[in-house]
Amino acid sequence: MVIGKIIGNVWATRKDESLNGLKFMIAQLDNSEKIVVCDYIGAGIGDMVLITRGSGARQVLESQDIPIDAITIGIIDGFEDGE
Amino acid sequence: MVIGKIIGNVWATRKDESLNGLKFMIAQLDNSEKIVVCDYIGAGIGDMVLITRGSGARQVLESQDIPIDAITIGIIDGFEDGE
Amino acid sequence: MVIGKIIGNVWATRKDESLNGLKFMIAQLDNSEKIVVCDYIGAGIGDMVLITRGSGARQVLESQDIPIDAITIGIIDGFEDGE
Amino acid sequence: MVIGKIIGNVWATRKDESLNGLKFMIAQLDNSEKIVVCDYIGAGIGDMVLITRGSGARQVLESQDIPIDAITIGIIDGFEDGE
Amino acid sequence: MVIGKIIGNVWATRKDESLNGLKFMIAQLDNSEKIVVCDYIGAGIGDMVLITRGSGARQVLESQDIPIDAITIGIIDGFEDGE
Repeated sequence: MVIGKIIGNVWATRKDESLNGLKFMIAQLDNSEKIVVCDYIGAGIGDMVLITRGSGARQVLESQDIPIDAITIGIIDGFEDGE
Repeated sequence: MVIGKIIGNVWATRKDESLNGLKFMIAQLDNSEKIVVCDYIGAGIGDMVLITRGSGARQVLESQDIPIDAITIGIIDGFEDGE
Repeated sequence: MVIGKIIGNVWATRKDESLNGLKFMIAQLDNSEKIVVCDYIGAGIGDMVLITRGSGARQVLESQDIPIDAITIGIIDGFEDGE
Repeated sequence: MVIGKIIGNVWATRKDESLNGLKFMIAQLDNSEKIVVCDYIGAGIGDMVLITRGSGARQVLESQDIPIDAITIGIIDGFEDGE
Repeated sequence: MVIGKIIGNVWATRKDESLNGLKFMIAQLDNSEKIVVCDYIGAGIGDMVLITRGSGARQVLESQDIPIDAITIGIIDGFEDGE
């Protein structure tokens, strides 16, 4: 998983119908890369979130046929980074 | 997912027959990397699209036996990028 | 797999309920990249661990429906690096 | 998918027996990275090919138990790159 | 797949029990990145090997429940690199 900061929303009217009702947000990762995540946990702009990528991202949705590859699985309360 | 801009088409006459009828396009990502995506949503040159990669890319096709690893799942109307 | 050093913990109260009881830690990889891993093996801060990423990370949990993409599979006693 | 140029062959006598009869070639990607691909389409040195990576690479083989992670799915006739 | 050079061994006494009997080695890739591979083919230090990553790495083991993400599938006799 990676930690990301939610920095924006994405709107797409024309999309695969299996995506209706899902919310897509932009997350910025530690290495400054930006990815689009499906928000499953009710994240808002500015939240630090835990993100799962790849096939794991489809495990929490009701149907595994939904074509996503990144999802928020938690909102981070805190972390300690010993480095 | 990632956001990409459609910048070109790809033609391949000699290919796996399961690919017949699919359209392949070049998308440029935010980090300037170029990938080839299967266009599922009717994207055109210049469109900003939402792209799913990996096994998720096969979830929307009628058969999951088709050997692709990237697909357009939506055409982006807009996004806000708070950074 | 990759070798990582456990350098911190991650806390998330609001999360997918399938994650309850799992411990999440920050691991730093050889290339200095930091990822979040699910700790399956009882690792502590400072331990060098062997990490599996992708769908393989879900093979050791009781349910494969848990949305993770990285897990510790062993604590490293030693390694020789011939380079 | 990515576009690669076939630049060489790979020979391995001692290998997993499921790989017998498969041809392995070196492909150079746009970012100059070199990967080894299983050639499914009859590509030759110098050909530009379309490459699928990950689990999608196993969809075209008769058995999905063959341990490969990259395959040629088409020989490219041409592409336009608007950038 | 990628070509790697085997440069060391990894020992882990405390590990997931499904890993008992498997050998883990450090492989250095062309881009100088180091990864840990499960050795399936009897590779030794200094051997050039062909490595499959991701879910493909689990196809050759007796059980696909073993949490690995990289495996040696062949020892390379030679390759020609036209670049």
